[in-house]
Amino acid sequence: MFDANVDKYRVPYDGTFRINAAPTDVSGEHPDNLRKRLKHEVRQIATAQKRLYADNRYAVLLVFQAMDAAGKDSTIRAALSGLDPAWCHVSAFKKPSNTELEHDFLWRTTCALPKRGRIGIFNRSHYEEVLVVRVNPGLLRYQRLPDSEPNEEFWAERLRSIAAHERHLAANGTVILKFFLNVSRKEQTRRFLDRLETPSKQWKFSTGDLDEAEHWSAYMQAYADALNATSKPWAPWYAIPADDKPYMRYRVAKTIATTLASLDTRYPEPDANDKADYPLHRARLQGWLDEF
Amino acid sequence: MFDANVDKYRVPYDGTFRINAAPTDVSGEHPDNLRKRLKHEVRQIATAQKRLYADNRYAVLLVFQAMDAAGKDSTIRAALSGLDPAWCHVSAFKKPSNTELEHDFLWRTTCALPKRGRIGIFNRSHYEEVLVVRVNPGLLRYQRLPDSEPNEEFWAERLRSIAAHERHLAANGTVILKFFLNVSRKEQTRRFLDRLETPSKQWKFSTGDLDEAEHWSAYMQAYADALNATSKPWAPWYAIPADDKPYMRYRVAKTIATTLASLDTRYPEPDANDKADYPLHRARLQGWLDEF
Repeated sequence: MFDANVDKYRVPYDGTFRINAAPTDVSGEHPDNLRKRLKHEVRQIATAQKRLYADNRYAVLLVFQAMDAAGKDSTIRAALSGLDPAWCHVSAFKKPSNTELEHDFLWRTTCALPKRGRIGIFNRSHYEEVLVVRVNPGLLRYQRLPDSEPNEEFWAERLRSIAAHERHLAANGTVILKFFLNVSRKEQTRRFLDRLETPSKQWKFSTGDLDEAEHWSAYMQAYADALNATSKPWAPWYAIPADDKPYMRYRVAKTIATTLASLDTRYPEPDANDKADYPLHRARLQGWLDEF
Repeated sequence: MFDANVDKYRVPYDGTFRINAAPTDVSGEHPDNLRKRLKHEVRQIATAQKRLYADNRYAVLLVFQAMDAAGKDSTIRAALSGLDPAWCHVSAFKKPSNTELEHDFLWRTTCALPKRGRIGIFNRSHYEEVLVVRVNPGLLRYQRLPDSEPNEEFWAERLRSIAAHERHLAANGTVILKFFLNVSRKEQTRRFLDRLETPSKQWKFSTGDLDEAEHWSAYMQAYADALNATSKPWAPWYAIPADDKPYMRYRVAKTIATTLASLDTRYPEPDANDKADYPLHRARLQGWLDEF
């Protein structure tokens, strides 16, 4: 049956997440009116965002990771299009540039972190460094690391770096939510076929995506390790079933809305001294009005 | 009577714009159903934006300048909230940081320019350098310029820098639209009073805004000079009447929508060689499906 609890898909904090047991398809179990429910959650997010901005103490970081064609772009659009574009910023992290490769692997995402009062969305993120790079360790040579041997300890050290970085951000006022959009290999294959068959989608088709899909089980292992090592109370992962897009979008929006609503944000009170001057300002402004 | 021509409020390219003759209030003349009309324009913008992104040749830069309380924030929100947040980015330029002051005056806005396929929105911009800085030339000392005397020639040189910069951007694929939201001093005064009287708006009230408003005629002279020097076919200014917010938002959205619709953007065709391989990819994907 339908479970409205936003923690239903939360990755546990004790390292017991098993990716093969995590659902990708929940059609039949989900509620009706998903579009209406999504709209409701988006409105809640928009309201909470205004308070977040006026309050100006928290930043919010939303991380999206998934296999290709899981629906990252459309989910970000669906959950966040209603927001004031001045207060949220999406950063997409694709193949790193030469400048980015000249820095440590957390540098480029750190430069894109949201300011206080804002929502930052990472479409892919620093996690690519323990996902695509782990599955294709040949990519490491572009990073020119001293003394690096991409063994188990190497990847465990990267995960420790990421966990420590996120703990630091959380301790300094960043609210972190991470979404793994969990699509099945069968549904991914169907979506690739759909891109091939639909002229208006063909420009999105890439042979490279197919080659990556062949590494499916290596990716699943990398995801499982990453989620188990870094799902923490201050930076939880949610493994959202992604085979059914309307349901996925609704669950993502609901998780964001619920988290934002739980923050103690408020509109700032004017300083008492400033307020004492209000009659003066009022008189000054009224004086102008009389002149016009 | 209502004039649907988007060029109605365009600042002429020949330097004949007279700011005192530019309308701030057109209530009574505007059409009904402004909210519905705004929604229609926003949908047009969203559709054009998708094509702009897929086409990936043009960047779009929207510049917003106005006196305080004219409605920049709410107009940006109204005209652009329907867009995919991944493809548009708002940059607000307030008091420059120390790092920014260590560069030439076009540096900080240049760093924030939109990429190809994206829409960049400047809430205030490089024009602050010939507006607030011109009205308050004491601010120049923080820029530590060699041999600078803030005389007429100094400001004319800044305007030449800006015009040349925008011409360069346009020549390299950036579509530039600039909006001066033209509010009357009377309406601005009313809005300041409203901020004082409304508890939920008091946090926006700033005494500094009142001090700037006292320099009204100096600002109008600075705006007139800036608009006359830099309204060009490749980077037009629009002086939009701002006393009536719903009308202003609709006119801004309509101007953006009309400009985007005029671009020759299209969904890219896959390369013919790539297309020849589609049967191979199809067979590969079908093979996977049979296995699952």
